[in-house]
Amino acid sequence: MKYCRCERAGRIHYGLIEGDDVALLDGAPFSGGRTTGERLRLAEVRLMAPVEPPNVFAIGANYQDHIDETGSSRPERPLIFLKPTTAVIGPETPVVLPTMAPDEVDYEAELAIIIGRTARNLPPEAAIGAVFGYTCANDISARDCQKRIDRQWTRAKGFDTFCPLGPWIETDLSPADLPISLRLNGQVMQQGTTAAMVFAIPYLISYLSQAFTLLPGTVILTGTPAGVGMARKPPRFLRPGDTTEVTIGGIGTLRNPIRAEGTDTVRAPCCA
Amino acid sequence: MKYCRCERAGRIHYGLIEGDDVALLDGAPFSGGRTTGERLRLAEVRLMAPVEPPNVFAIGANYQDHIDETGSSRPERPLIFLKPTTAVIGPETPVVLPTMAPDEVDYEAELAIIIGRTARNLPPEAAIGAVFGYTCANDISARDCQKRIDRQWTRAKGFDTFCPLGPWIETDLSPADLPISLRLNGQVMQQGTTAAMVFAIPYLISYLSQAFTLLPGTVILTGTPAGVGMARKPPRFLRPGDTTEVTIGGIGTLRNPIRAEGTDTVRAPCCA
Repeated sequence: MKYCRCERAGRIHYGLIEGDDVALLDGAPFSGGRTTGERLRLAEVRLMAPVEPPNVFAIGANYQDHIDETGSSRPERPLIFLKPTTAVIGPETPVVLPTMAPDEVDYEAELAIIIGRTARNLPPEAAIGAVFGYTCANDISARDCQKRIDRQWTRAKGFDTFCPLGPWIETDLSPADLPISLRLNGQVMQQGTTAAMVFAIPYLISYLSQAFTLLPGTVILTGTPAGVGMARKPPRFLRPGDTTEVTIGGIGTLRNPIRAEGTDTVRAPCCA
Repeated sequence: MKYCRCERAGRIHYGLIEGDDVALLDGAPFSGGRTTGERLRLAEVRLMAPVEPPNVFAIGANYQDHIDETGSSRPERPLIFLKPTTAVIGPETPVVLPTMAPDEVDYEAELAIIIGRTARNLPPEAAIGAVFGYTCANDISARDCQKRIDRQWTRAKGFDTFCPLGPWIETDLSPADLPISLRLNGQVMQQGTTAAMVFAIPYLISYLSQAFTLLPGTVILTGTPAGVGMARKPPRFLRPGDTTEVTIGGIGTLRNPIRAEGTDTVRAPCCA
């Protein structure tokens, strides 16, 4: 099933997508939200990030071909970092190149896990049972901050708008071998499969759950395959007017335009 | 004024402390909560973390004497990291030494800022206007993960229970020169003043607000003075049965016992 979060006439709803309709829910589906009986046309709503997460965990260096292209080493254990919740935006919302670091902003297509129930100390064989579903993510990264300027990745990976999620959460999906790609202005830049992850999804969830309580709605980004802009010769960083599209088989496409800071008439609020 | 969050008979409230009483609020005070007229005796409630933050930002290496004792270098700009919201606990709640990394868990007394209204791109001279108040924090850190095992600080600084906050938020306070100390089992281990910060609070808030939207309830930990366990000869890491007390002038004392994982009958929930 496909669950979304959407806005119409200033009201924000969680919803279940049924054909051309959205059946509205009275709360987040991973927190017990149920259908209200009210329906909207999918074409009449604005899709937003499908979750308002309590935390966004992310895994770095989790595809060997991306490890190779960046000259880093294969991690012995999952390389965990956090993105602030304020970085989350939805489909079609602009990614903003920050005034602080506009020059080396890069894309990373990633499969995102949405946790469905509180999880702590799960063994790998029980991990998938804690998953609500999956969506597309773009782990936007300011490479100058990440590689040269900052000691931790918080700014690099955490500027406002640096975590597009969407377009919806697919719950009926095996994540083990899904095609994942990123197109920049229509051109394929990344193309891989989730089968190539260094640490597979059950292991990642189990590992994280040994350190952190994973609450319903927690988002886990699972790493990106080869083809990022930083590793190209010459590098290809994001510029105003660009458009990124992350496509994952069985889910759909997450599309976001790129803008310079200060050029939007209305700044994107969190989880917009 | 002193604002708290507290529990009595299974119900959780925000409250305003007035003498020996707590005047209950109908919501978080930094989100428009107002007094309901209901009052409880302070002695009859259990104080919890005074805020449920949307994000917890923290600043590393922000006191010169701590930079010196750890042999690190003075950062050119604020060294920012994140703690997951699930790490937050309140006063008297046990800090749990995680099974994953129990051996080198350390304390760090810190002044915590609580943001009172949405802030983005604030100049330093407007930064204090976005502050709701201040509380005590303990930036608990697994030094093995931080220094040797992990590439980012997420586990080291983010295990469940690694962010004690409290006992309440003091709103009538100038943060520029407050005595700050940490006692371990009654013995003074850290003693300094917030006047010794490398980057002062108005600058920190301004800097963060250029990268991130600071929502009401956002917590910013501002760094720790010298005296951490890692820098002692021999090192003094936390052990089950220890008690830490962070005391900041004008606020009060945040006290937490230390436990091994699996020895509590009831695991601390988030923001407990």
